[in-house]
Amino acid sequence: MIPRYSRPDMVAIWSPETKFRIWYEIEAHACDAQAELGVIPKANAEAVWKAKDVEFDVARIDEIEAVTKHDVIAFLTHLAEIIGNEDARFVHQGMTSSDVLDTTFNIQLVRAADIIIADLEALLDALKRRAVEHKDTVRIGRSHGIHAEPTTMGLTFARFYAEMDRNLARMKVARQEVATGAISGAVGTFANIDPAVEAHVCEKLGLTPEPISTQVIPRDRHAAFFAAMGVVASSIENIAIEIRHMQRTEVLEAEEFFSKGQKGSSAMPHKRNPVLTENLTGLARLVRMAVVPAMENVALWHERDISHSSVERNIGPDTTVTLDFALARLTQVIDKLVVYPETMMKNMNKFKGLVMSQRVLLALTQAGVSREDAYRLVQRNAMKVWEQGADFKTELLGDAEVTAALSAEEIEEKFDLGYHTKHVDTIFERVFGKS
Amino acid sequence: MIPRYSRPDMVAIWSPETKFRIWYEIEAHACDAQAELGVIPKANAEAVWKAKDVEFDVARIDEIEAVTKHDVIAFLTHLAEIIGNEDARFVHQGMTSSDVLDTTFNIQLVRAADIIIADLEALLDALKRRAVEHKDTVRIGRSHGIHAEPTTMGLTFARFYAEMDRNLARMKVARQEVATGAISGAVGTFANIDPAVEAHVCEKLGLTPEPISTQVIPRDRHAAFFAAMGVVASSIENIAIEIRHMQRTEVLEAEEFFSKGQKGSSAMPHKRNPVLTENLTGLARLVRMAVVPAMENVALWHERDISHSSVERNIGPDTTVTLDFALARLTQVIDKLVVYPETMMKNMNKFKGLVMSQRVLLALTQAGVSREDAYRLVQRNAMKVWEQGADFKTELLGDAEVTAALSAEEIEEKFDLGYHTKHVDTIFERVFGKS
Amino acid sequence: MIPRYSRPDMVAIWSPETKFRIWYEIEAHACDAQAELGVIPKANAEAVWKAKDVEFDVARIDEIEAVTKHDVIAFLTHLAEIIGNEDARFVHQGMTSSDVLDTTFNIQLVRAADIIIADLEALLDALKRRAVEHKDTVRIGRSHGIHAEPTTMGLTFARFYAEMDRNLARMKVARQEVATGAISGAVGTFANIDPAVEAHVCEKLGLTPEPISTQVIPRDRHAAFFAAMGVVASSIENIAIEIRHMQRTEVLEAEEFFSKGQKGSSAMPHKRNPVLTENLTGLARLVRMAVVPAMENVALWHERDISHSSVERNIGPDTTVTLDFALARLTQVIDKLVVYPETMMKNMNKFKGLVMSQRVLLALTQAGVSREDAYRLVQRNAMKVWEQGADFKTELLGDAEVTAALSAEEIEEKFDLGYHTKHVDTIFERVFGKS
Amino acid sequence: MIPRYSRPDMVAIWSPETKFRIWYEIEAHACDAQAELGVIPKANAEAVWKAKDVEFDVARIDEIEAVTKHDVIAFLTHLAEIIGNEDARFVHQGMTSSDVLDTTFNIQLVRAADIIIADLEALLDALKRRAVEHKDTVRIGRSHGIHAEPTTMGLTFARFYAEMDRNLARMKVARQEVATGAISGAVGTFANIDPAVEAHVCEKLGLTPEPISTQVIPRDRHAAFFAAMGVVASSIENIAIEIRHMQRTEVLEAEEFFSKGQKGSSAMPHKRNPVLTENLTGLARLVRMAVVPAMENVALWHERDISHSSVERNIGPDTTVTLDFALARLTQVIDKLVVYPETMMKNMNKFKGLVMSQRVLLALTQAGVSREDAYRLVQRNAMKVWEQGADFKTELLGDAEVTAALSAEEIEEKFDLGYHTKHVDTIFERVFGKS
Repeated sequence: MIPRYSRPDMVAIWSPETKFRIWYEIEAHACDAQAELGVIPKANAEAVWKAKDVEFDVARIDEIEAVTKHDVIAFLTHLAEIIGNEDARFVHQGMTSSDVLDTTFNIQLVRAADIIIADLEALLDALKRRAVEHKDTVRIGRSHGIHAEPTTMGLTFARFYAEMDRNLARMKVARQEVATGAISGAVGTFANIDPAVEAHVCEKLGLTPEPISTQVIPRDRHAAFFAAMGVVASSIENIAIEIRHMQRTEVLEAEEFFSKGQKGSSAMPHKRNPVLTENLTGLARLVRMAVVPAMENVALWHERDISHSSVERNIGPDTTVTLDFALARLTQVIDKLVVYPETMMKNMNKFKGLVMSQRVLLALTQAGVSREDAYRLVQRNAMKVWEQGADFKTELLGDAEVTAALSAEEIEEKFDLGYHTKHVDTIFERVFGKS
Repeated sequence: MIPRYSRPDMVAIWSPETKFRIWYEIEAHACDAQAELGVIPKANAEAVWKAKDVEFDVARIDEIEAVTKHDVIAFLTHLAEIIGNEDARFVHQGMTSSDVLDTTFNIQLVRAADIIIADLEALLDALKRRAVEHKDTVRIGRSHGIHAEPTTMGLTFARFYAEMDRNLARMKVARQEVATGAISGAVGTFANIDPAVEAHVCEKLGLTPEPISTQVIPRDRHAAFFAAMGVVASSIENIAIEIRHMQRTEVLEAEEFFSKGQKGSSAMPHKRNPVLTENLTGLARLVRMAVVPAMENVALWHERDISHSSVERNIGPDTTVTLDFALARLTQVIDKLVVYPETMMKNMNKFKGLVMSQRVLLALTQAGVSREDAYRLVQRNAMKVWEQGADFKTELLGDAEVTAALSAEEIEEKFDLGYHTKHVDTIFERVFGKS
Repeated sequence: MIPRYSRPDMVAIWSPETKFRIWYEIEAHACDAQAELGVIPKANAEAVWKAKDVEFDVARIDEIEAVTKHDVIAFLTHLAEIIGNEDARFVHQGMTSSDVLDTTFNIQLVRAADIIIADLEALLDALKRRAVEHKDTVRIGRSHGIHAEPTTMGLTFARFYAEMDRNLARMKVARQEVATGAISGAVGTFANIDPAVEAHVCEKLGLTPEPISTQVIPRDRHAAFFAAMGVVASSIENIAIEIRHMQRTEVLEAEEFFSKGQKGSSAMPHKRNPVLTENLTGLARLVRMAVVPAMENVALWHERDISHSSVERNIGPDTTVTLDFALARLTQVIDKLVVYPETMMKNMNKFKGLVMSQRVLLALTQAGVSREDAYRLVQRNAMKVWEQGADFKTELLGDAEVTAALSAEEIEEKFDLGYHTKHVDTIFERVFGKS
Repeated sequence: MIPRYSRPDMVAIWSPETKFRIWYEIEAHACDAQAELGVIPKANAEAVWKAKDVEFDVARIDEIEAVTKHDVIAFLTHLAEIIGNEDARFVHQGMTSSDVLDTTFNIQLVRAADIIIADLEALLDALKRRAVEHKDTVRIGRSHGIHAEPTTMGLTFARFYAEMDRNLARMKVARQEVATGAISGAVGTFANIDPAVEAHVCEKLGLTPEPISTQVIPRDRHAAFFAAMGVVASSIENIAIEIRHMQRTEVLEAEEFFSKGQKGSSAMPHKRNPVLTENLTGLARLVRMAVVPAMENVALWHERDISHSSVERNIGPDTTVTLDFALARLTQVIDKLVVYPETMMKNMNKFKGLVMSQRVLLALTQAGVSREDAYRLVQRNAMKVWEQGADFKTELLGDAEVTAALSAEEIEEKFDLGYHTKHVDTIFERVFGKS
């Protein structure tokens, strides 16, 4: 977790304070359920809630753990220091450390998912706003980095919206994947604890009981969770790459917002570098790198081994913190992106009229020219534009073989931009719904 | 794609024959829609269907491609050879190669998903059958590879069932992810083709129109698809590892089916090696390795670049073929797994009674002994079993500090296996529903 | 392995014919050594060489394997069919299948490495030739996709040369990593075979005896081998991305060779797409995806499990074939790359003189202006170029605060291109050595 | 970076204090070289060394960076605060931030490599010591988790030694890969700074000048570096898995050291879990996950983009810190591993004599029995051991078809353990050299 790529709310989810707070809530709710079942005295269960507003002393817990070499025991010892040994004696009864640890990890992931979902919603708002703003801002569409046919900047934003909207759906599914808890004992048989305890704790904490657990909640859930984040990250990279391309000196169709005081480089003051989206490209790699280890974590030995734990101590916080930061940064980039419609038009006209060659090809075919001949005719004139800087329309009008098939009016009509944008509203409706 | 790890139905999805057949159907349906719109003559559209039952000549198409260096043009040329140049002249009108290629790829993935879904259902059947069969077959649960508390073999099968059932759900979502088609032109603006064509083709082929495409269908969909397969593969590994552990000489609680004629090794005839599950462990790695490149494929430049294509030519067939094979092999392994309940019991009793220590610990606590003291008492007697091969129950009965807290009857009761299996029915109901 | 991304020599290494040929050689040399040791009769060892020029019947071996379910036994049975059961009876004596399989795999990897090394050498030749050709072809250097300072196209080729030269060194090390053989028996103890056999076979086949093997040659060697290929692939991607950038419409400083007959797109005939380098970008992902499974293969259970085998059956051929093809394709791209020096100059001058701002900044500092002030002065004038299309030099000459520090001559001098290329020869010497 | 998986020396390499100290040294040495060249006054260069023993104020630098948004400028400003603006005015002259940042990163990686190399040497010492100690401790070798033939625990340690010795060599190569520095300016042309500065700085800091850099040192070097660490991690996993297997209840041939005070589990006091090696398994995944992003970092745009930076801010410290910790932990595990030779012998005899079947097979063949018949004879008797718990030797002695080929003495001889260990000394010599 790198401070400069972190935001406080997500970081807080992974703090020791939050962790111990969740541990406490699990233990306290479990005591309530145990008391309800008559397994432990009600008075003891109630007494646990005395610590409800107490801030646990992380340093003290660490101190105890240094001796006991066991984190949950250390916490329980500290809890006993607060509520008294007598009242604390039934806490954790029948439970296994993993009951607490795994349920806690899932609660943290659910909270992280909630933040990421909110991040995605904010990003969607920004993308939608910019899409509407630039619905009719014509720019050249490019395949292979080469000019193809006109499209609009609004469509670019709209497709990012649609992609991120799918990511929103994925993160909601991913959230459900990990929204389970387990209080099922050492090997998941509920030998020492009634399933009703699990049911109660899960209900209180917004989780579903894991239908069948061992000592751990099965890790395919987490693999799916991290995989979903990997897809979101890849979409972030997708948008970032687009913006980086748009900002490069020769294209310059857009720029990341550049604050007056900011120095782009110690040596080249004129440079406005797309450093935010370059950074996002790197952050995407960081989020993505958690996917494989999360998958490697699935195959635990028998009812559990602890190999997954160190992996999760890292990727749990790091991946969610990085993704949260990246989404927020991307939202800011989209929100403030400086778009240059004039440059877009200028770029499109770099090879005069050439981007209309597809239309001309089609018109020739429709006028009865064979596909092969039409192709040859278009290519012949296109090459003059490409190599000599000629104007495509002028060349076509002067090519007898072309004008034998198409009238001057017909040729003119092929260079109408409106032809390319006529379905933009339809697409917007498909993406954003009826307005 | 390795023949020995392939099954014919999945392989067939990726054959040139299938590919050209799908291309043909897309083109033919598109012609119908174009004719309906009045863009091309109805007669021409109808004529395309003349090739409905023709088997395309792959070698001939390859021959043409060697000249044109363009696969779709090669196919269209061959189609014209079949239905005649005159009738063929409106085929592909207004379309871009990618319209055909991307829609085809998604159809192939949907079909692959259907096979994988069927594979998972067959696996679930096998797992359920074995779970019911061994619902009450007691074996020791293990954490860290170390004996913990008793569980049952049925619970082991049941948890694999639950995990694979989640994978079934994931694959159904993944199938939906890629069940889209796009006929939207060079940059996705429908400039040269009406959205109605896309709607018609998609409906005929069981797809949903991609709400907004560029020259390609966005690759976040495919990233999610391959990620889902990566999770399934990790679950396969999970089951495979369990079986490999069960079959190891010292454990021997189960064995893969061993046919009479099979030679386990050229040199050690007595060896029955868990080669199928070892193989599945490797196959899981192969499936999983597609996840990262599929994610790297998301960030295409502008309206498309073709970097994803070579990746998909590989992972499209290889990953689905491997996963299909692996699931089928796993189903066979589960179906025929030879389970040894007696060895399970023998293994459990290796350290006489020690696995009951958790119960004794709890009983002591409940009898008023402090957690620390109870821990010490249990540990003291447990070590005698561990180090000197003593019997745990006997030791406890002879420990005055223990018997001061627990009566002989109470101690005896802690060694009742039924205590551990009392919730098995509850868990089965959670996993399989009410029977 | 995708035929269109394959070259015959590399494919041949992985054919069944080659595999059986290597198996045969291992067995035959082993017999010689066994005869030399007096373990088997010399006559029998000599008889094995009767099959020296026989082409093994792959179909027949497959047929036998279908019955025996064991590939090495199937081969040995077939060999006995050729040389006679009597003469064949000492073949493979004391050996384990893995002795043959692992040594064979390493021989295949060594041969693959040899091809890749030759590929790299060919690529280096092309890069050097183009570097020398364009040593003085000035183009703008870019950081963050933004114009920075002038460099030369020769330096671009030269840095790719240096990078690929490092890759050559890495592949040579990688080759050494896997150039070992093992004939050490079922668990590597040489219980049934003398180490002298291993020594003889290895010497004959150009390998070093593996100092300590188990049933397998340790897989850290292969992990390192595939990791090296992953690095090479990443360098291929690096060069591919550069060329794709150079070819994009707005930059157009270079183009992949475009043969007259080639159709760039079915719809846009004027487009010259950098499809080869886009393809290389994808192929790089394919090569790289083998790295993690190769590393996951290292941790085999005890003296071996067979999980690595299915992985290697895939990545062995696929990764080497893909890398070979990619390197050859890249060499062709470099060799024929069409470079446009005039466009390079035009691009550099897009923002008139602005790329010299660093020099001016430095000059101001050296003339006694504080760093902060110099920065402000340069930025002030640069912004006029950026925003209003002004000429940087003219602006500077008209800025009193600037001219107070620098004379007109001094300002003029800052715009001399030779200033930037003065160390090109030095760098070339560092990369290519003294010419 | 997770504190519990970190060691202070490696952490210190990545502290802001260390980073600024290296920045300072680069700047100061560069000033010396610039003064030597006559570019800046000697007095100024000397003055920079006034800060030699000053501890830089990280908080102050952060404060300045919050304003300037540029880390190197912030540092230089702080340096000027220390040595005075007048003396500081020539610091960093002609340099680019990247010159400092990249050279610093490489110095940090070199120092990290030195620690890892020392870690490996310590691990090798431990492995060698334990190998010698257990050179003759016989245990059963296993393939597929199944008993094969006898080997010794010393050979197990020895093969881990050989593997880690290869890793040592790899890390030394990896160290060389990144032991370069670059002070070559904005695009690597040395336009504003003489190559002699780079040469001087590199010499002083133990680096080699990067033969050709752009704004950055090429990232294939770092990809190779992280790949090497990924291989080391995979070997760690290899050893960890072996120990986890040895410690499982049914095997119990070894245990991690278990301190008296340590509580293995809150609920099962008798359990001694191999938590250290399970942890190492997870740490290996963490180290390995850096490999792919490091490779993705290679393809930077043109003369640099900054996408690699965020990746390296994470994997630079995290991967080296984790690997250092893992190696140290593994050394401790090896050093203190409790080995149980008696259990090894007991395990080997689980299926009485069966592990000698390979020898018997061979003996039968050598006695003139056909391979097929010998196989059948061995299998027949082996199955009795396997299924009925018979003693292999006894069965053989009672099988007329066997005794027809082999005398009782010959059969007896096949069960001599010395047969399997006779080449242990040879192998030790191959691994450790002549003693």
